[in-house]
Amino acid sequence: MTQTDRIWTAALLVIGDEILSGRTEDRNIAQVAKWLQVQGIRLTEVRVVPDKMDRIGEAINALRTAYDYVFTTGGIGPTHDDISVDAVAAALGVPVVIHPEARAILEDYYTTRGGLNDARLRMARVPEGADLIVNRLSGAPGIRIGNILMMAGVPSIAAQMLDSLTGKLEGGAILLSETVGGWIKESEVADLLRMVEQGHSHCQIGSYPFFRDGRTGANFVIRSTDADELASCVDTLCEGLGELGFDFTPGGI
Amino acid sequence: MTQTDRIWTAALLVIGDEILSGRTEDRNIAQVAKWLQVQGIRLTEVRVVPDKMDRIGEAINALRTAYDYVFTTGGIGPTHDDISVDAVAAALGVPVVIHPEARAILEDYYTTRGGLNDARLRMARVPEGADLIVNRLSGAPGIRIGNILMMAGVPSIAAQMLDSLTGKLEGGAILLSETVGGWIKESEVADLLRMVEQGHSHCQIGSYPFFRDGRTGANFVIRSTDADELASCVDTLCEGLGELGFDFTPGGI
Repeated sequence: MTQTDRIWTAALLVIGDEILSGRTEDRNIAQVAKWLQVQGIRLTEVRVVPDKMDRIGEAINALRTAYDYVFTTGGIGPTHDDISVDAVAAALGVPVVIHPEARAILEDYYTTRGGLNDARLRMARVPEGADLIVNRLSGAPGIRIGNILMMAGVPSIAAQMLDSLTGKLEGGAILLSETVGGWIKESEVADLLRMVEQGHSHCQIGSYPFFRDGRTGANFVIRSTDADELASCVDTLCEGLGELGFDFTPGGI
Repeated sequence: MTQTDRIWTAALLVIGDEILSGRTEDRNIAQVAKWLQVQGIRLTEVRVVPDKMDRIGEAINALRTAYDYVFTTGGIGPTHDDISVDAVAAALGVPVVIHPEARAILEDYYTTRGGLNDARLRMARVPEGADLIVNRLSGAPGIRIGNILMMAGVPSIAAQMLDSLTGKLEGGAILLSETVGGWIKESEVADLLRMVEQGHSHCQIGSYPFFRDGRTGANFVIRSTDADELASCVDTLCEGLGELGFDFTPGGI
């Protein structure tokens, strides 16, 4: 495997009781997944764990050794239930320290917003040795230590942090995808899908059924890092669907 | 701990490349989480893994030994990328067999829909020893084997399967919750939240900030299995917020 063929992988650890209780519908998995695609990094596993030191620590240690990057969302705010920094520091065996630049950012941010109290100063705490992921929206920065990137749980703030990381992480070939879809029952084209995939060894085809207005449809997503093979695979699939008499739409429906 | 105090736990394993690529935003985590709350079962971990035999198998074996129940979503359809049954069977060390009742259900369902072909018959395959989770929407049933409950990835079909499981799983005390919220910066009430939580040992308070129309607010979610202590905790928190001069709303905003 040459350097350019190396596949870069990432895991996402979503930290938060509010996701596990169903109170809050997670928006970060899809957001981080899409962003990683563009960086040439594959999101390969997601875990959601509660706001508990040991559960966060176990997950961090399992994921940071298995993947190139581990992103976390949640638990870096000012309140008592924000324990992600403590949990990651404990997992890494380093103390928690006040990051001077984070403190300065927060002092500046809260100058016109009531001043920097003890709770707000919590957001300057980092595992020793960490760098900051700057965030213009709320002042409080994200944290980067080793291959771990810690972000806020609020999706709009996490988005700002991803934005400031854009282009800064080493990645590989971007996974390209094309979608073909129509009012097709996937169970009627299962053989075709399997054969087309087998004929294109660097492509993967996913089949995603949907049900709308009492009708059954499916989208077929073809993924490859090779643009030519991707195009050839899409052509072959479209030909096959046409020969079977299906109406379909490149781009999916 | 008495029998009624036993906490019943569950994990959810979301199986699907489409979630990890960001193409599809997961809806099953929140759906399963909310449903479990009502059954008196706590969702304690979620993992999302790709459509790969070994990755599904590893996760199944890790989760089924750690929790009372493991739910899976995705990968039980008719196409080549639907490998969840094979992966779970391999993880359990049992063969895959055609379930006669599932076959009968599918034969009946497809009588008026083009007949039961090989692809559709795939949806009657189960790990040996499994029972079915009946589903009126699409014909194809979910699968129950040991403490593993396998459901469809399409949220509306997963919902049908959950519905047919309602009241059938042993659970414990239901985790109750109340929300109090307002245009409050959580960093201004962090001490109050911590003190109120410390004063109610069977309650947990989560603090969830939000940003809307350029303003900052927060919802505080108080959780307990004890209705009296929950009510007392909510009262104490509301008194504290009132004394600090905040406008807030029981029920949250």
